Amino acid sequence: MEIQLAVAKINKYATSDSGDSVEVVERPNGGISVVMADGQSSGKGAKQISSLVVRKVISLLSEGVRDGAAARAASDYLFTERKGKVSATLNIVSIDMQTATMVITRNNPLPVLIASNAEICAFDDECSPIGLYRETRPLISEVPLEPGLVVVLYTDGLVHAGSRSGESLDINTFLQSVIDDDIEEEETKPQDIADSLLAAAVQLDQGRPVDDITVVVILVSSRKNDSTRRMTVELPLNL
Amino acid sequence: MEIQLAVAKINKYATSDSGDSVEVVERPNGGISVVMADGQSSGKGAKQISSLVVRKVISLLSEGVRDGAAARAASDYLFTERKGKVSATLNIVSIDMQTATMVITRNNPLPVLIASNAEICAFDDECSPIGLYRETRPLISEVPLEPGLVVVLYTDGLVHAGSRSGESLDINTFLQSVIDDDIEEEETKPQDIADSLLAAAVQLDQGRPVDDITVVVILVSSRKNDSTRRMTVELPLNL
Repeated sequence: MEIQLAVAKINKYATSDSGDSVEVVERPNGGISVVMADGQSSGKGAKQISSLVVRKVISLLSEGVRDGAAARAASDYLFTERKGKVSATLNIVSIDMQTATMVITRNNPLPVLIASNAEICAFDDECSPIGLYRETRPLISEVPLEPGLVVVLYTDGLVHAGSRSGESLDINTFLQSVIDDDIEEEETKPQDIADSLLAAAVQLDQGRPVDDITVVVILVSSRKNDSTRRMTVELPLNL
Repeated sequence: MEIQLAVAKINKYATSDSGDSVEVVERPNGGISVVMADGQSSGKGAKQISSLVVRKVISLLSEGVRDGAAARAASDYLFTERKGKVSATLNIVSIDMQTATMVITRNNPLPVLIASNAEICAFDDECSPIGLYRETRPLISEVPLEPGLVVVLYTDGLVHAGSRSGESLDINTFLQSVIDDDIEEEETKPQDIADSLLAAAVQLDQGRPVDDITVVVILVSSRKNDSTRRMTVELPLNL
């Protein structure tokens, strides 16, 4: 088995700073975590918030702190730093080698989609973003690592896509169609899933995204791996 | 233009912990940094050292600390933590949007290879690993971000490959041949460069790497980007 993770991320039209931040970090006891945050509003201020949150979380995770405790710490930290006036959404998804599970942590009203055996369910119980109140708690779900498991998370830019023209993306249906296509062609590529979700959203926004959009897709593949860990980054340059 | 970065990483044969650590982190003023460390010896102890070093560096970089200062801090930190008894090599390569340069920081006797216009030169001035002495300083080189620039860094597992049978990989020549091939086919993929270097090393080791091997390739591409930032991770699972 291997874990395949992909991120696709685009800025709100005509802004140089994204209010979304996402980082991947190695876990000290094995596995990796992906941390995604969306700071309130957009531009420089939002970027500062989301990167402060992500930084705090990856720093704690890399020291071995549990995901739930890291999310609580980030909430208290943001609450203290900004006196409860600024919120951010936070998602953590961890591949935890110790428990052989995927641990999904949410402080985000948006659902995390979990597909297994070509059926999609939404982890969408009510929960709050961080930073506004004391005692904010994350919701946590644990899923065994089994081939075919696909987890999709995103920031609200994906949900708001098309709002300029009164349209919107039916993310579940879109994802279902992508997964169904993939099953026929055997090899599912999470980057293709992330890219096609992002492309559909950008198209609804007529090529000018109304908000920062981040899509993260994590897939457990049955592919026999060559024991090699790989990572790629593509970073657009606007110099 | 866009930056394309790729990492390929394999453990020493029959060990579950790699003494190499590598992480990519976003820079708060734009751009990204990749941080690679190799802890003295191998296995759990080495992993602990290299991840301590990488964690310290990415945490400082994400707060806006300059690369050279982050390397010095990591050296002092390791020296203090382990009383000067344990060393680690450290490399940082940053895409710095403020200066529009690639900043290459070395505390590693091994060279960093820099290819531009199909010519390879080695940034190989003498420098020390961190952790053994006070006042250890990194060497820093800055290169303008221009299409066709390729930077390759690696840990000593790549250099020691083949030592069991008295062979070794001529990394420069190998890289030159990969780059020459790529020019004909137009689109250079850093993951292909990293993978082929790693594969050549593993082959010299008869499929049983004598040491942890990490290869990082960073490429400045003239490809017109769709303003989308992408990241992928492939993580082998041994459950």
